[in-house]
Amino acid sequence: MDRRAIGVFDSGLGGLTAVKKLMEVMPREDIIYFGDTGRVPYGGRSRETIIKYAGQDIEFLRKFNIKAVVAACGTVSTNGLEEISGGFDFPVMGVLGPAASAAARMTKTGRIGIIGTAASIRSGAYERRLMELLPGCRIFSRACPLLVPVIEEGRIRKGDRLLSLVADEYLSYFDDKDIDTLIMGCTHYPIIADTIAERLGGVNLIDPGGETAKELSGFLRERGLLTDSEKGSCRFYVSDSVEGFAEKADIFLQQRIEGQVSRVSIDEL
Amino acid sequence: MDRRAIGVFDSGLGGLTAVKKLMEVMPREDIIYFGDTGRVPYGGRSRETIIKYAGQDIEFLRKFNIKAVVAACGTVSTNGLEEISGGFDFPVMGVLGPAASAAARMTKTGRIGIIGTAASIRSGAYERRLMELLPGCRIFSRACPLLVPVIEEGRIRKGDRLLSLVADEYLSYFDDKDIDTLIMGCTHYPIIADTIAERLGGVNLIDPGGETAKELSGFLRERGLLTDSEKGSCRFYVSDSVEGFAEKADIFLQQRIEGQVSRVSIDEL
Repeated sequence: MDRRAIGVFDSGLGGLTAVKKLMEVMPREDIIYFGDTGRVPYGGRSRETIIKYAGQDIEFLRKFNIKAVVAACGTVSTNGLEEISGGFDFPVMGVLGPAASAAARMTKTGRIGIIGTAASIRSGAYERRLMELLPGCRIFSRACPLLVPVIEEGRIRKGDRLLSLVADEYLSYFDDKDIDTLIMGCTHYPIIADTIAERLGGVNLIDPGGETAKELSGFLRERGLLTDSEKGSCRFYVSDSVEGFAEKADIFLQQRIEGQVSRVSIDEL
Repeated sequence: MDRRAIGVFDSGLGGLTAVKKLMEVMPREDIIYFGDTGRVPYGGRSRETIIKYAGQDIEFLRKFNIKAVVAACGTVSTNGLEEISGGFDFPVMGVLGPAASAAARMTKTGRIGIIGTAASIRSGAYERRLMELLPGCRIFSRACPLLVPVIEEGRIRKGDRLLSLVADEYLSYFDDKDIDTLIMGCTHYPIIADTIAERLGGVNLIDPGGETAKELSGFLRERGLLTDSEKGSCRFYVSDSVEGFAEKADIFLQQRIEGQVSRVSIDEL
């Protein structure tokens, strides 16, 4: 039994899709969320910069009394997270492993698609993990660099003209690939899962945040680290204005978070 | 006569359009450019964060022996630049004034359009300046939040499907506005001037970087601060990887800049 909170971070709002899943799977746990909205997006930056920002993000969360950290960011999870996670005295779980395992489990044809940020796709991390789990599988990857900006702009409604145009631009790549499973390799993407599902039709969609929530729950249970509290709470920290975050976070979390958000100076990271 | 360099900064690559103009107008001047590629884009951030980043950018340039700074960033120029520029012992010139003056000079009908980042348009700074210069003019503003990500992705070729789609999404706003002049209120936009010109047809396009280069040249000449060097040089500093910058900068500057780029740590700002 361990009442310490679970820390979660992302470049911006995307990680809230993971928070939503964590709250569903472990409603009793306290969660501390950090969204690096002052430096979002990460997906177009160099590996070196991503590693540096991720390290600062985890350092920030470390100041709280936490028992584990979830890197709820596909870009961080595929760009050197393992290099820095060993430096902390609590487990740091990325979304790569849980999402890859789920895809390997769910595919029937072994033809798997991956979408992600430029940095995530460039890393080749999903391909490597999937080839270990399912040798002989066929993997088709497509970087979708503008999906995060589109989603952070709040253009997420199915049928939104701009979202449809951008999604079609990227997803048409899969038209002749005959995949049966797609990893939405960025925690922003589940927000537009309906648009993706409609465009691809009949493909299993893997939500990395959801898979990670399940894996973390099992991990904590096995080690007797789940809380015995009645009901968990959430605190949110951001590195740009609280107003901008609170407005958009409602959409991502599908619940009001007013009054629970604080701003932190990026210089403190 | 003053051989000190001119400092120029932007959130990322956009300011290079101003550098190109500065080199054309004042080919003998040395230029120190800082692109905050580790934190680009600025246009979706809060005024407070923009002011903070801009202050750090100018502080970085101050370490060099400079005689003036150009804020080659529409977002910074419209969000509190005047509040911080007074704190330095060299002139800091934004693109707002020069661009607004040019628009007021060029319009015949007094119907002026402005495109810019969300933060630039939200500020209302261009409207206020234009109403001072040309009382009674009609101003039509449109935030184009995704143009900077699209341009930073290098999707700038006229006819590029994604660029065309995004540009049309925003510029269709002007279809019934009957403007004769458009301020491209972000230094990224001149890179896609051909796409904008084709979409709007027959409208005067104001390039803020170009106007600022002319105004700075006059300012320095009046004060006897132009250099007497034979030929100017350029040095570039960025806060993310040099490789990513050098690749794309070629397109913006239309000349190779290999070997002149250095990386600076964002923590030093």
